Amino acid sequence: MIESKSKNAAPETVAGNGLLHRRIFLTRGAALLGAGSLGLLTPTLAVAQVAPEMPVLAKVPGAALSGYGNRSVFEEGIKRYNIRTYPGTTGSGGSWTPLESLEGIITPSALHFERHHSGIPDINPDVHRLLIHGLVDRPLIFSMDALSRYPMVSRIQFIECSGNSRVGTAPKPVQMTAGGLHGLFSCSEWTGVPLSILLEEAGVDPKAGWLLAEGADSAAMARSVPMAKAMDDALIALYQNGERLRPSNGYPMRLFLPGYEGNMSVKWLRRIKVTSGPTMTRDETAEYTDTRPDGSSLMFTFPMEVKSVITAPSFGRNLQGAGLYEISGMAWSGAGKIARVDVSVDGGQTWGQAALSEPVLSKAVTRFRVAWQWNGGPAVIMSRAVDDSGAVQPNRAQFLAARGLKRNYHYNAIQSWKVAANGEVSNVYA
Amino acid sequence: MIESKSKNAAPETVAGNGLLHRRIFLTRGAALLGAGSLGLLTPTLAVAQVAPEMPVLAKVPGAALSGYGNRSVFEEGIKRYNIRTYPGTTGSGGSWTPLESLEGIITPSALHFERHHSGIPDINPDVHRLLIHGLVDRPLIFSMDALSRYPMVSRIQFIECSGNSRVGTAPKPVQMTAGGLHGLFSCSEWTGVPLSILLEEAGVDPKAGWLLAEGADSAAMARSVPMAKAMDDALIALYQNGERLRPSNGYPMRLFLPGYEGNMSVKWLRRIKVTSGPTMTRDETAEYTDTRPDGSSLMFTFPMEVKSVITAPSFGRNLQGAGLYEISGMAWSGAGKIARVDVSVDGGQTWGQAALSEPVLSKAVTRFRVAWQWNGGPAVIMSRAVDDSGAVQPNRAQFLAARGLKRNYHYNAIQSWKVAANGEVSNVYA
Repeated sequence: MIESKSKNAAPETVAGNGLLHRRIFLTRGAALLGAGSLGLLTPTLAVAQVAPEMPVLAKVPGAALSGYGNRSVFEEGIKRYNIRTYPGTTGSGGSWTPLESLEGIITPSALHFERHHSGIPDINPDVHRLLIHGLVDRPLIFSMDALSRYPMVSRIQFIECSGNSRVGTAPKPVQMTAGGLHGLFSCSEWTGVPLSILLEEAGVDPKAGWLLAEGADSAAMARSVPMAKAMDDALIALYQNGERLRPSNGYPMRLFLPGYEGNMSVKWLRRIKVTSGPTMTRDETAEYTDTRPDGSSLMFTFPMEVKSVITAPSFGRNLQGAGLYEISGMAWSGAGKIARVDVSVDGGQTWGQAALSEPVLSKAVTRFRVAWQWNGGPAVIMSRAVDDSGAVQPNRAQFLAARGLKRNYHYNAIQSWKVAANGEVSNVYA
Repeated sequence: MIESKSKNAAPETVAGNGLLHRRIFLTRGAALLGAGSLGLLTPTLAVAQVAPEMPVLAKVPGAALSGYGNRSVFEEGIKRYNIRTYPGTTGSGGSWTPLESLEGIITPSALHFERHHSGIPDINPDVHRLLIHGLVDRPLIFSMDALSRYPMVSRIQFIECSGNSRVGTAPKPVQMTAGGLHGLFSCSEWTGVPLSILLEEAGVDPKAGWLLAEGADSAAMARSVPMAKAMDDALIALYQNGERLRPSNGYPMRLFLPGYEGNMSVKWLRRIKVTSGPTMTRDETAEYTDTRPDGSSLMFTFPMEVKSVITAPSFGRNLQGAGLYEISGMAWSGAGKIARVDVSVDGGQTWGQAALSEPVLSKAVTRFRVAWQWNGGPAVIMSRAVDDSGAVQPNRAQFLAARGLKRNYHYNAIQSWKVAANGEVSNVYA
């Protein structure tokens, strides 16, 4: 391999330490960058200026067709992280999406994070029923066939466990991948029946203010949901990424509450009881409450706040020498759309705007990208998301000052990665 | 199960035989439909007005967490169709996506259609290289690592084999599912490097008008691509639906030409040669040309035209008695966005507009939905897509009159389904 020696006009920088203007990602190609483009890319990349030497061509026919395909044997190392079942439980545990191995905004269903309270039932859809009862004019029971005749909607939206990223409160930064730190978080295309239609069918009593949603797993995981959310954008989800839900995501049906803490999107949904107030279930009193500095707890803090994480570079995705790199990451907010993502490559002293990949959808992952001309020196990179409600992702010091160290949920502080001179990336508090 | 007897105001119809206004799919729920909503839904659906009887709750803990998940055992019957390898070849064959089992716009990668010319190689990404040569200033070779440092873009877009739906030219309608008839067609989120950037890197000679793209499969499948397309929206795709490409979709890299016939999006891409004219490969002369009524052939008819298919109801998805149903389907165009989908439930005499599910993206599947109050009599249902270039999907008679019966590619005529009084759905020419 011979690196090209050509070097043309310098690219346009927007912040300190080599952060480039996002224009490079907003145009169709380098052509629109003008004469600087070749100088920007060529010297930095391991491309070879060589005589045409043919890459390998297969000499024998490949594998046969199949009914339901799988990935390459060379990709089998990409797995969910931190797989654990808590001792002394009947199957309470979790697994984390390897965010740093993904691109775009869709999480493959096989890599969607998991958080279960009593293992994963695989329920026969022919026997499963959904009951709607409580403060309604007419209690109703829906089979899968009945539900399938209702109007459906599809939306690409994220789901995030409220305990995601809590490792960020540890006194020293834990050295893990982006997925290991922040991967209780995934984004899918969900299709289902708006819950509002079913509630209208049942006829909601004017005294009703909440509902109880309960799963058919042996833990009977249950949460209280405000009626306003149920009537807004809640779905009874039947499909994920085109096909039926996976068992680990609530097959054959789950509640889906866009933007709310994941635990409330009750899987294997079997019952919705319309109530006047919250039911105060074990799952919302013993867990999923936010401990305040004085030891008291905040309940019912539902929306997941604005957040982002850089996935490339990140721990385990080290840099190979000075030059041009794409910084790429995910941003999201339970309040709506991502309005802007700022990136810093000098530890937060100066910031430049990243390009947002279309489509930018409400309560979905937004992929952001920006170019960085790394000079080979130590650097700290960070991203800061802003949503269309105006909320700004806090840095760690701001987050802890406001909420205290005892907080186990809703951690959304800025993730900082340190790039060492040898290209190694580590998790730092900055 | 007891069906409710309540019946309120009649819903608003927009075309003959019970086609309802799309408004029902444009609002958040039945609440916004007013008093008619309950009358619309309740009498038609198998919901029961019963005393609260609990649906089944699991009595034992479920399965354990896993690194890479799978679907429910109850879904294992959902497979690709028509799986075949042509006799006398080294592995030329195809398989069809079961479109009628999907919802939303994303096709799960495990169900993406296949069309291979010499089986499916599983290429080691560490040894694979992409060569760009021919009429360029500097021939370049890219490793996967080198490519991964270039700016990437993500787009949700379809890919369709140009031979898709050719069974529609058969003298009598073939009785198959929507996927069996039209499933050489899928839609994914693709992420990759714009080809224009790599061509700019290599420096394209002003005399260049085309390029040759060649795969690393043992057939060395190769097609000619106009330079204008290469510089417009062509990608070197590395990711599909969040993860790396599947081997059946060209792992570790494929060309992706949005809206163009699928065969041109060369899989297992190993070589791009910049040329002055088309190379006239075997794959674009012996195949993938359009035979005209006089026996001559049209070459280089690249864009896939505007098209749609109703997936529910469809062959194999029969109706269960008179009442309300959701008609749901997919529309797409290689020219751009879907502007409108009209639906008829009286064999094309009258038409009403379907609701288009967001997001409506260029060269992507657009999911359309409309409500139908079926009176239990025989009916013929059809959908007609219109794209934002103004192109209108033709009916079968119009298509054949214009293009002749010998045409093997680019069949995009309207699909008609007949619903019999007993609810059975069949493929008809109407």
